[in-house]
Amino acid sequence: MALNGMVGISNSSRYTHLAIRKAPAVLILIFLLLPGVFSHAAPGNHPSKTAPSTMPSTNVILFIGDGMDEHQITMARNYLYGADGAFAMEQMPVRSSVQVHTLREDNPNQFRYVADSANTASTLATGLLTSKGRISTSAVKNINQETILEAAQKKSYRTGLVSTASLTDATPAAFATHTSHRNCRTTKNMSVINRSVGKTQQCALDLKSHGGSGSIAEQLATANIEVLLGGGMTPFNQPVENHDKGQPHILDMALNQGYLLINQAEELSITGYTSKLLGLFANKHLPVEWRGEKNQLAEKITTDNKGNAVFPTPFSCTTNPHHQGIPTLAQMTEQAIQLLSHNNQQGFFLMVEGASIDKQAHRRNPCGQIGELRAFDQAVAIGRQFAQQQPNTLIIVTADHGQAGQIVPLPESYQAASKAVHMAQYPAGHYAVLKTLSGELMAVNYATNSSPQGKWEMHTGTNVPAYMEGPGLDGVPALIDQRDINQLMRRHLKLH
Amino acid sequence: MALNGMVGISNSSRYTHLAIRKAPAVLILIFLLLPGVFSHAAPGNHPSKTAPSTMPSTNVILFIGDGMDEHQITMARNYLYGADGAFAMEQMPVRSSVQVHTLREDNPNQFRYVADSANTASTLATGLLTSKGRISTSAVKNINQETILEAAQKKSYRTGLVSTASLTDATPAAFATHTSHRNCRTTKNMSVINRSVGKTQQCALDLKSHGGSGSIAEQLATANIEVLLGGGMTPFNQPVENHDKGQPHILDMALNQGYLLINQAEELSITGYTSKLLGLFANKHLPVEWRGEKNQLAEKITTDNKGNAVFPTPFSCTTNPHHQGIPTLAQMTEQAIQLLSHNNQQGFFLMVEGASIDKQAHRRNPCGQIGELRAFDQAVAIGRQFAQQQPNTLIIVTADHGQAGQIVPLPESYQAASKAVHMAQYPAGHYAVLKTLSGELMAVNYATNSSPQGKWEMHTGTNVPAYMEGPGLDGVPALIDQRDINQLMRRHLKLH
Repeated sequence: MALNGMVGISNSSRYTHLAIRKAPAVLILIFLLLPGVFSHAAPGNHPSKTAPSTMPSTNVILFIGDGMDEHQITMARNYLYGADGAFAMEQMPVRSSVQVHTLREDNPNQFRYVADSANTASTLATGLLTSKGRISTSAVKNINQETILEAAQKKSYRTGLVSTASLTDATPAAFATHTSHRNCRTTKNMSVINRSVGKTQQCALDLKSHGGSGSIAEQLATANIEVLLGGGMTPFNQPVENHDKGQPHILDMALNQGYLLINQAEELSITGYTSKLLGLFANKHLPVEWRGEKNQLAEKITTDNKGNAVFPTPFSCTTNPHHQGIPTLAQMTEQAIQLLSHNNQQGFFLMVEGASIDKQAHRRNPCGQIGELRAFDQAVAIGRQFAQQQPNTLIIVTADHGQAGQIVPLPESYQAASKAVHMAQYPAGHYAVLKTLSGELMAVNYATNSSPQGKWEMHTGTNVPAYMEGPGLDGVPALIDQRDINQLMRRHLKLH
Repeated sequence: MALNGMVGISNSSRYTHLAIRKAPAVLILIFLLLPGVFSHAAPGNHPSKTAPSTMPSTNVILFIGDGMDEHQITMARNYLYGADGAFAMEQMPVRSSVQVHTLREDNPNQFRYVADSANTASTLATGLLTSKGRISTSAVKNINQETILEAAQKKSYRTGLVSTASLTDATPAAFATHTSHRNCRTTKNMSVINRSVGKTQQCALDLKSHGGSGSIAEQLATANIEVLLGGGMTPFNQPVENHDKGQPHILDMALNQGYLLINQAEELSITGYTSKLLGLFANKHLPVEWRGEKNQLAEKITTDNKGNAVFPTPFSCTTNPHHQGIPTLAQMTEQAIQLLSHNNQQGFFLMVEGASIDKQAHRRNPCGQIGELRAFDQAVAIGRQFAQQQPNTLIIVTADHGQAGQIVPLPESYQAASKAVHMAQYPAGHYAVLKTLSGELMAVNYATNSSPQGKWEMHTGTNVPAYMEGPGLDGVPALIDQRDINQLMRRHLKLH
């Protein structure tokens, strides 16, 4: 049983350490190669890659599983490890529950009870509450709020952002940029009126020419962040706001700031120390690791001509061929930790996002969601390895908001119930039956939006978990909120 | 913020201490009246009622919120206390996440991923896994498994079971009785074939005449439990198996065992010390405390003649007049603690169930569910008051399995999305918009079963929370399972 070691099962044996796949090795730019320092390829196989620096340092690694509430975790754990399994994050010593706050833009004294990734990442980043869609700006007044990353930079900590999304997506953006809305990614569309929000959240307000901070991509390119790894080549390839003044693309701004740019998985492993690394491994978000057999998603239950429910065929998860040549989140995390900790006496702040747990739940893709949660947890395991060697490292793993997926009874339960009450009973929404790795069946249902197309599933309003490891965690209450996570991190980095 | 006192807000000010309502005061039987010892009426108002005994004692109080997963807790907390609120249970120092296990009756080497209250209460009670529907018997073989209550009795601990359900319902039953199926409540139907399960779960197997332990009600009546408080007059009024041998009703068996029987709320407060108390306050389950204005439940979203979604009208929760004259769970808990702790040097084991959080979620009744969660937490607060005075008390608050309710975006979010993608988008399932006590709106959705009638919503498979307080909790992992909760309780009572 767990108290006597059940949850102490080593997670390492559960992980498939992916070797770097063969892929074109052409680098966009010449980069530094220091093979004596960084000569290893696959994450986890080479503990020397996370060997302790000779200097003591104070570090924070914040892992954000987008949409990763307790229910989504249980679903992925059941699929991967069975009823008695455990993720690496679940073996961390402190577990709390986190309230998620969203102010109303039209009345910031009141709350909404369902959040988005922009306002919640902003709260994690700044310690302050705001309204949906905002990127580290205040509700209504659109005032920039200092992020923990910015505060850490002022104290000479190195900083990094790693995500499976485009780096201009809401979660990474909220740690280093400030806009009225998450859509203000590049200058291109910033003058277009955003009809889905009021006049206080128009990107035009954020144009530099209007006294704003500029687009998210431009702000990221000039934020002096040592490590930026994720997707988003397309927004970085957009023109800058003042593109007639000799800086035609945001990417050029980044290069002018001294970034080494890479876009291939292999480059991660062979890139030696560089003071600034920008890795953009896809045009938009990174392709996900897993998908359903024959690309199966959850689907509507149909009825036969007698009115009886016809449930979808059970299926397994399989690797997604489009992920070929894309670095895993664990690989990006390991490289980020390497660069941030290399000869660094002060320490670092690193945010790592598993973005597509949420994006795949939106699409009713249980296998996509499970594969991304697995990838996220493998990245957490890398962080935990580092913390074992650098004990003044605080690791916090949390989610930004809830998602739609629910584990529900198998078809046979509905059929039995149907017999008993003489009528058709089956789940509303979109339904899938998964053949888990241990050979059992698990049914999942998504039902927050009946639309067959469009935005699909919606976020949900549940509290989310926080798993923590490191110094200074005695007495963390059972119930905290996202501002508290910011405070714990600031306290650890002595930013007050 | 929470770390500096936010969640330390005293919960006592949030609770309405209900005075005993006027109701017929006729007692079924003459009972002992010791006004000098027990002269107080309302729970919580009279701390002297939970004054420490002069003797040290070792106690366990297990609170089970049926169907009370993290999402249902967030929903109730938002409604009652707003975005920054906290339940009494959430202010307990240790918070873990609990895996829920269900074996397959047809293949007990495999798991199902959605449980019922019978098998999960059995695991909490016995520390062993079993299959759906079973009451502390093993899967397939139907062997009785010793419960913590039975083990505690052998060591001279007093014991008690308190529930808002019929006492013959699965959760209380699992702590003191053993049957192949939760339906084996009385002898009456035990020979009828139960078509919804296989031949290994037929109540006929449990008839005394077939070598079994007899019906749940008969077993409860003879289990020597000091305090039994809840609903279920009807099953106790059924004939015993050998009813031609001079014991026509199960209630008579109980009286022969020395029980004082009460059935009115006032009797709780005026009943003095009695060595055995049986309180049956309703024929079946106790009526719930709250319901929706005009009895509103969640309902299907309709469409107007243009195909646009028409969302249900927002509503508030209100008291349920049928709860008039019924004791609250807090009142029953307080009386149970009084009787169990009175002049008791050894200590006690008490299980308190908030049964109708689940039952109201099944019925898509958000107000019923929220009111019962509130009542449950008020009972937890009573337990915590006692533990402050008797520090060798272990309190564990947990749930047995997940339920269907989800907090989803408000209609305006769907309408905005609809405009954007030019098609109707709205939640599948049954939907309600609640006017919370702080004046905000919160939307909830139930979508695990599309049937408008019958069993309605289904359980879900999420992990559930555990909140703990008391000695011996250092190092409780972030992830445990229901067997571990049994082990923690047994260890505290030194039952190994």
